[in-house]
Amino acid sequence: MKKIITIRLKEHKYNILISQSTNDFFSIIKNQTKTFFIVTDTNIAKLHLKYLVNLFKQHGYNAKTAVINAGESGKSIKNLSYLYDKALEVGIDRKSCAIAFGGGVVGDITGFFAATYMRGIDFIQIPTTLLAMTDSSIGGKTAANIPCGKNIAGVFYQPKLVWINTFFLKSLPKRQVKNGLAEIIKYAFIFDYKFYNYLTNLFGNKTMSSKDFDYMVYKSCSYKAKIVEKDEKETNGIRAVLNFGHTYAHALETATHYKKILHGEAVAVGMLFSTQLSLKLKLCGKETYNKVKKLLKLTMFDLDIKNNPKQLLTLMKKDKKSVNGNINFVLIKDIGRTVNKQVNDNIVLNVLKGK
Amino acid sequence: MKKIITIRLKEHKYNILISQSTNDFFSIIKNQTKTFFIVTDTNIAKLHLKYLVNLFKQHGYNAKTAVINAGESGKSIKNLSYLYDKALEVGIDRKSCAIAFGGGVVGDITGFFAATYMRGIDFIQIPTTLLAMTDSSIGGKTAANIPCGKNIAGVFYQPKLVWINTFFLKSLPKRQVKNGLAEIIKYAFIFDYKFYNYLTNLFGNKTMSSKDFDYMVYKSCSYKAKIVEKDEKETNGIRAVLNFGHTYAHALETATHYKKILHGEAVAVGMLFSTQLSLKLKLCGKETYNKVKKLLKLTMFDLDIKNNPKQLLTLMKKDKKSVNGNINFVLIKDIGRTVNKQVNDNIVLNVLKGK
Repeated sequence: MKKIITIRLKEHKYNILISQSTNDFFSIIKNQTKTFFIVTDTNIAKLHLKYLVNLFKQHGYNAKTAVINAGESGKSIKNLSYLYDKALEVGIDRKSCAIAFGGGVVGDITGFFAATYMRGIDFIQIPTTLLAMTDSSIGGKTAANIPCGKNIAGVFYQPKLVWINTFFLKSLPKRQVKNGLAEIIKYAFIFDYKFYNYLTNLFGNKTMSSKDFDYMVYKSCSYKAKIVEKDEKETNGIRAVLNFGHTYAHALETATHYKKILHGEAVAVGMLFSTQLSLKLKLCGKETYNKVKKLLKLTMFDLDIKNNPKQLLTLMKKDKKSVNGNINFVLIKDIGRTVNKQVNDNIVLNVLKGK
Repeated sequence: MKKIITIRLKEHKYNILISQSTNDFFSIIKNQTKTFFIVTDTNIAKLHLKYLVNLFKQHGYNAKTAVINAGESGKSIKNLSYLYDKALEVGIDRKSCAIAFGGGVVGDITGFFAATYMRGIDFIQIPTTLLAMTDSSIGGKTAANIPCGKNIAGVFYQPKLVWINTFFLKSLPKRQVKNGLAEIIKYAFIFDYKFYNYLTNLFGNKTMSSKDFDYMVYKSCSYKAKIVEKDEKETNGIRAVLNFGHTYAHALETATHYKKILHGEAVAVGMLFSTQLSLKLKLCGKETYNKVKKLLKLTMFDLDIKNNPKQLLTLMKKDKKSVNGNINFVLIKDIGRTVNKQVNDNIVLNVLKGK
């Protein structure tokens, strides 16, 4: 399969290429630059870095590399500093192009690096995880963590190209695949009843082909692209819809120090929580709640993660998107229809307590 | 004097307010936000921070502060990290506004912080040095240094407002005033014969009033604003003209580790060097060379700084603006007229050697 999705933004446009053909990729980047700076993490370096570097060399390019530690801690200011040093050392200049080769962490820190190295150089996303393919590699959010907060540092900075090659999913651990499915399911919940049905059938059958992955990634990217086009920098509220399940998820991830629970796992529980909240506020009926729960169950998410309600409430109030301590939620009216709403702390707390 | 210069850019416009009246400033920022995050250095903190914080409080605002070490080393990634931590600690959110209160170092690092904190918050420049008032506070260049290179990290990020209050110059050491005069002279050399004559008369008389400073700052800002409007991100070559004397200056500053020689002092020698180069290439006549030298002498710059020609050449070839090792110079044809040119290494070396 070869699909191209174009994201048209105010200042420039760029493509998402979904293809397993390396020729498709190299024919697009032709004449862009001579020198690439491939950033990856220790996990991907072991599996695929040599392969990618050789590909670039075969096509006549210089390929310099930098490897950061795998995991959320890879997104540190220390690593950002390391990337600046390394890039300067290996001769990366304003005309070079950085490549984020890995999951969301690599994408975020490489994007931040590219946005801020010599006041901005080009960069390309080559996501290797399902989560990065369907969500973080698209939309231009870049970030680094500081000791007291996740994604506190960062800028909006769009890549020149996103190349999604689902071949890389073959080496992805099962738990990480499920991690990505959460965001795919999210697009169904917030936008598309048909896609919901497709996923329910697919997950019910429990076998997924390479074609299925290509299709799910294509659908997700198409939705994300549309939203990003309408609200590149989260200024008019349109992009907020992508936050379905995320206010809760961010709080849960912070409470568990980004260790035990993966982002997608937290988002899965977060989406169920938002639906419970919607039910409580009579925005949706029991039927919708059951549908949400059904698909989450089919995807084998653990929906009974224990939490401390008061702690979660406090953390949600501190969310970047909260203003003056008021929590904004994306709530669901029906599969495919959402509404943004500020919810009173007491109601949130009661639902957190299971009341 | 109250002057307002408006900079009109693609995405937004902003004002440079030149005024010693605090009311002028506060009437402009009215209703912008409730909370300000004032960043300054240890020198300015001692002299003026209390005064500024009280002003904000008197006008009903919250004013949080952060103080970094004075000097070029203040522009470190470590300090950037400190600003993120401190901002989060004191409750700075997406609606808050940062204030860069100091010289170029404070302006650069605060701008970089504001551009990247929670993916960008508003910021205001209140420059306290003549160099910052005439040059670095305008144009949206933000930066941090890494151990191996100055300004390697950074982004283009425009302030919401620049408030230039020449009252702060009263506490500025004489050497720092001269430091700023170099950039003012530069505007005369590259744009304006009349302004050259004005400065020649003024510096010949050796007394400068507050009015003179306001006027020089106004002229400089007007020129810088025009150039920034035409080439916000240094993409079409127009902004390069502001680099007159700077290729040499950056090399000299690097060679002397940004310690012995101030930026303006290096730019002064750099402008003379560029003129020597222009003379060598027969782009200008001896008369122009004499005029350049005359004004630099009147400003009391030391024009006989010893250097190592080969080292300077190597450093110039590494300049961010050099491409594939070819050095681009802004050369002078006459006072007020320049030309951009790539110059052969041997010619550069000969002129460096005084040949």
